[in-house]
Amino acid sequence: MRKVYFTPGPSGLYFTVEHHIKHAIKSGVTSISHRSKQFEEIFREAETNLKTLLQLPDNYKMVFTSSATEIWEKMADNLISNKSLHMVNGAFSKKFFTAVHNLNKEADIIESSWGDLPDFNTSTSESYDLIGVTHNETSTGVRTPLDKLYSLKEQHPDSIVAVDAVSSLPVVDFDYSKIDTVYASVQKAFGLPAGLGVWLINDKTEALARKLYEQSNARQSSHNVISLLDQAQKYQTPSTPNILGIYLFSQVVGDMINRGIQQIRNDVIYKSAIMYNMLDQHDIIKPFVQEKTLRSDTIIVIDSGERTSDLKTYLSDHKLEVGNGYGKMMGKQIRIANFPTHSKEQFEMLVDLINKFE
Amino acid sequence: MRKVYFTPGPSGLYFTVEHHIKHAIKSGVTSISHRSKQFEEIFREAETNLKTLLQLPDNYKMVFTSSATEIWEKMADNLISNKSLHMVNGAFSKKFFTAVHNLNKEADIIESSWGDLPDFNTSTSESYDLIGVTHNETSTGVRTPLDKLYSLKEQHPDSIVAVDAVSSLPVVDFDYSKIDTVYASVQKAFGLPAGLGVWLINDKTEALARKLYEQSNARQSSHNVISLLDQAQKYQTPSTPNILGIYLFSQVVGDMINRGIQQIRNDVIYKSAIMYNMLDQHDIIKPFVQEKTLRSDTIIVIDSGERTSDLKTYLSDHKLEVGNGYGKMMGKQIRIANFPTHSKEQFEMLVDLINKFE
Repeated sequence: MRKVYFTPGPSGLYFTVEHHIKHAIKSGVTSISHRSKQFEEIFREAETNLKTLLQLPDNYKMVFTSSATEIWEKMADNLISNKSLHMVNGAFSKKFFTAVHNLNKEADIIESSWGDLPDFNTSTSESYDLIGVTHNETSTGVRTPLDKLYSLKEQHPDSIVAVDAVSSLPVVDFDYSKIDTVYASVQKAFGLPAGLGVWLINDKTEALARKLYEQSNARQSSHNVISLLDQAQKYQTPSTPNILGIYLFSQVVGDMINRGIQQIRNDVIYKSAIMYNMLDQHDIIKPFVQEKTLRSDTIIVIDSGERTSDLKTYLSDHKLEVGNGYGKMMGKQIRIANFPTHSKEQFEMLVDLINKFE
Repeated sequence: MRKVYFTPGPSGLYFTVEHHIKHAIKSGVTSISHRSKQFEEIFREAETNLKTLLQLPDNYKMVFTSSATEIWEKMADNLISNKSLHMVNGAFSKKFFTAVHNLNKEADIIESSWGDLPDFNTSTSESYDLIGVTHNETSTGVRTPLDKLYSLKEQHPDSIVAVDAVSSLPVVDFDYSKIDTVYASVQKAFGLPAGLGVWLINDKTEALARKLYEQSNARQSSHNVISLLDQAQKYQTPSTPNILGIYLFSQVVGDMINRGIQQIRNDVIYKSAIMYNMLDQHDIIKPFVQEKTLRSDTIIVIDSGERTSDLKTYLSDHKLEVGNGYGKMMGKQIRIANFPTHSKEQFEMLVDLINKFE
């Protein structure tokens, strides 16, 4: 029996990936030029499929990067002239703030402790080019309620609201008119091998990038918002991309359309419900996030304290791999991914085993 | 019968890649965390294998990036304070110059026409931080003779000599003491799927990066020479990398060690010899590079003029895919990759078919 990976990303591959990789090799996808018509067709299909899956409005475009980290840096370079604001409640929301700071841009921060949410009443007269907010904090398992997230745009109608959905897309169902740009990594809920970032950009975000680009003698790195968008319009990339990754993305998103996004979302909610129900009643361990409205469906963090290592070993003995606590929580917590690739049966088995852990 | 890809990159996969991908999926390599011991072991094996294959001196370190394009930009940011010099004789050597220029660094250029070599007597009193030179111009099929390449360090002992070996490593046998830093893309002569850059950095190059880093209030992007080197020392990467790509790299380089680098190099020379011999005697088409000492072994460019489309179709009908001419040469030339994955038998068949083309 193969191991099942409930790690928070890289995680288990979507169950059709192996088939698509075989086909990619057989049909030569791994050998085609990224300047070929065949590649453009793959890119086009990836965009069409994602727009269908997410019911993305027409004012959004999609580009690929090598990682979400790269997206943070391109936002810092191309979307922030004056200042940004960052809602921070964990390691990854903090990393975006740090990336902006390290690239010599000014950034404010509204921060909460881990497991909680920052104060979304940002009462300030400050004018921000961009507000960074994390929908799903992969380090803590806190999910930002959508009404709070949307309130940022109400409070700051002139700012770009940039949403980190690295570990929640495509499970989360955004109202894309209430945010401006969203990004994800494919090795999480999309169930793909690591090495590709996906970035959705609306017309307002594009307009800001173009305005700043024209105003300044800015650095023009090969990957920037403008070059990525201009190339994507031709279904191309500025430099040689992870072609296999883009192909697998197009195919898996197509498979998710066929399965039905509502079915996928319902399954994730069911799996998260049985896990949290069990954890709330467990004798030894408990969910890290206390406030139920903040509990992430896709990243479930368990306070396992001194029993962390025992629990990990116990599950590993049953061929179930879960993730470590992040950073300072290493050795005190475990993190469990609840992604579309994890079947209800696998999750029921995992819940049952954890329930019996003593 | 599957197509054989003689395209200049992405090209045919090394013949063991399919096997290694299957093993990667089966054993969970595509699902492991990039912060795990298992990943560190893969990175360590990749470095050890590459050092063995290339007989790399101890004063060199290896890091991974997402592409060679990214390496150009990191060199511009981290290795150039004053000015760089670029030996340019085609599209890719020009792209490095342009990348430096676009990142607001000063850069000089010594340029030749396509198919030729720039004047390597750089007689100048200018002090350059870095000199960029392309060992193998993928756009034109010109190979820089090693004595010319090494002369740069003799003329500019204080500068970093940065060698683009994107389409010649690991076939080329460098004297690494006569250059300072070398980089390659894996989708060319290594025979791997696109989406990974490999960068070799000697101690002098590292020292320059550290000096410039300390002197300035420079931008600190997540991927920079220092962060890449510091993470690599722990067999880690600053952000989530293309883990599957790094695994495949480690395995294929291991396979190349077992096959023997001398055998691989001899085979490439044999294949290039039979191709150029045939082309020199062909009635209709001819090699683009006239000067025999400049003819690349790994990228063979054919002047096919008005018959280009006919020749491509003729080969494609025999399931042999060759590359287009690059940029302005599209439709006038074809480019043929002669990489380690291309067997002598496949190449003999290709040569035979082109010989019969009329």
